[in-house]
Amino acid sequence: MLLNFTKMHGLGNDFMVVDGVTQNVFLSKEQIKKLADRNFGIGFDQLLMVEPPYDPELDFHYRIFNSDGSEVQQCGNGARCFARFVHLKGLTNKTAIKVSTKSGNMVLYLEGEDQVTVNMGRPIFEPKKIPFVANQQEKTYLLQTSEKTVMAGVVSMGNPHGVVVVDDLENTDVLGLGAELEKHERFPENANIGFMQIINSEHIKLRVFERGAGETLACGSGACAAVVIGRIQDLLGSKVQVDLPGGSLHIRWHDESSPVKMTGPAQYVFDGQIHL
Amino acid sequence: MLLNFTKMHGLGNDFMVVDGVTQNVFLSKEQIKKLADRNFGIGFDQLLMVEPPYDPELDFHYRIFNSDGSEVQQCGNGARCFARFVHLKGLTNKTAIKVSTKSGNMVLYLEGEDQVTVNMGRPIFEPKKIPFVANQQEKTYLLQTSEKTVMAGVVSMGNPHGVVVVDDLENTDVLGLGAELEKHERFPENANIGFMQIINSEHIKLRVFERGAGETLACGSGACAAVVIGRIQDLLGSKVQVDLPGGSLHIRWHDESSPVKMTGPAQYVFDGQIHL
Repeated sequence: MLLNFTKMHGLGNDFMVVDGVTQNVFLSKEQIKKLADRNFGIGFDQLLMVEPPYDPELDFHYRIFNSDGSEVQQCGNGARCFARFVHLKGLTNKTAIKVSTKSGNMVLYLEGEDQVTVNMGRPIFEPKKIPFVANQQEKTYLLQTSEKTVMAGVVSMGNPHGVVVVDDLENTDVLGLGAELEKHERFPENANIGFMQIINSEHIKLRVFERGAGETLACGSGACAAVVIGRIQDLLGSKVQVDLPGGSLHIRWHDESSPVKMTGPAQYVFDGQIHL
Repeated sequence: MLLNFTKMHGLGNDFMVVDGVTQNVFLSKEQIKKLADRNFGIGFDQLLMVEPPYDPELDFHYRIFNSDGSEVQQCGNGARCFARFVHLKGLTNKTAIKVSTKSGNMVLYLEGEDQVTVNMGRPIFEPKKIPFVANQQEKTYLLQTSEKTVMAGVVSMGNPHGVVVVDDLENTDVLGLGAELEKHERFPENANIGFMQIINSEHIKLRVFERGAGETLACGSGACAAVVIGRIQDLLGSKVQVDLPGGSLHIRWHDESSPVKMTGPAQYVFDGQIHL
């Protein structure tokens, strides 16, 4: 069969997006792996499969698959591309789009040209639920590494994050320190590790070592975690611009009772057709 | 404008191929760089631009651009994809296709399903013309590296090649030794460095450290160079299968008066449309 697809990216995190509403398509794990190959296939970080809703209250369901063919839970960059895609393809004309995903329901808001706002849910600080090994909940924890003791904030945005404030992001050993902290014994399920440099209370620079992936161009949940940690440490306001290597996100968060809102770009790159 | 393109690969060396015969298109260096990006653009090793012939005796002209936007001379994997492309798109129905390129005219032969034969020209052994620093032409030369003395054959296939015979390709330090030999003082313009393990007189395994690029999945001129060097050292016959990390090529070469012929696959991946 001839499969239509669209290539998109959110801050360089790139997706093959497939309209599974008007196309009847099933891709096996092996097929996804082949399509993901950047030399032999189409090439992408994740495949985004858009499907009809399971519930009349919702507009769509969508699935995300990693390049190894495994289905994953959630991805802020993917959510923004999904929302832009269903508009581009005329699958909806709503600007508030209700979707179900493997990690629950969410609402996505299209704002102007290419910006999409995602409700990322409430941050979780309770150590057991992150999970993180600690006697009690603190604003910062001291983590011992092979070379030094690091002060980190710890939070879950649906996935565990450790966030370290640094003075000079460019000269921080993100790969070395990130790899060590990712698998620190106090993170029983490992963690994403963010390094943030504070420019002012409304602007930070951030690099994230993602769990199982290494440093990436842009980690949406990592941007949320950094702002949340900076805010509970009284370093940041409620609206913060986060500059990541792949571009900028805008994060809004008021207090522990409110959800984190992330606004950022979703870029259309090209349309393609491939024979399966 | 909306640009139609095709993604193809030859043994994993991947190309964005553009029909510049029926489309009126000019791409700037900056545009090529953006298109080449694997996260933000289409992603490719090289762009192949097919153009009308400059001479009524010829069928086409084509150009090759690296991912940094610079125009390059020749590429065996690209030549095969070019030949397959003009057939796929109905731009010709000839099976022997005459083309001009930056490095001269050539004839490409379509054979069966997805195989294309490229005449790679005659090998050049004269040290000055390779260029290689030597008092006289030899079948093998001793090259001093930081750790040991390496025995290498040296030849030009339009570009300089050093070829080293090894017993165990899997455990050869292709990256370390390749990087050192690539810039050896006896190669004034640097060189591609091939490491070949001989299975029998008709079958070799090869890994190539390409000049300026590092180890690649498949180097067409490197496969030719390896077979030529193996043959003048009386190790190989006139028809040899070369197994590269990206797949296999078949090389034919009789003697110093004859050209080297390379047969290998050219794979269509998908068609796409992008707004410029």
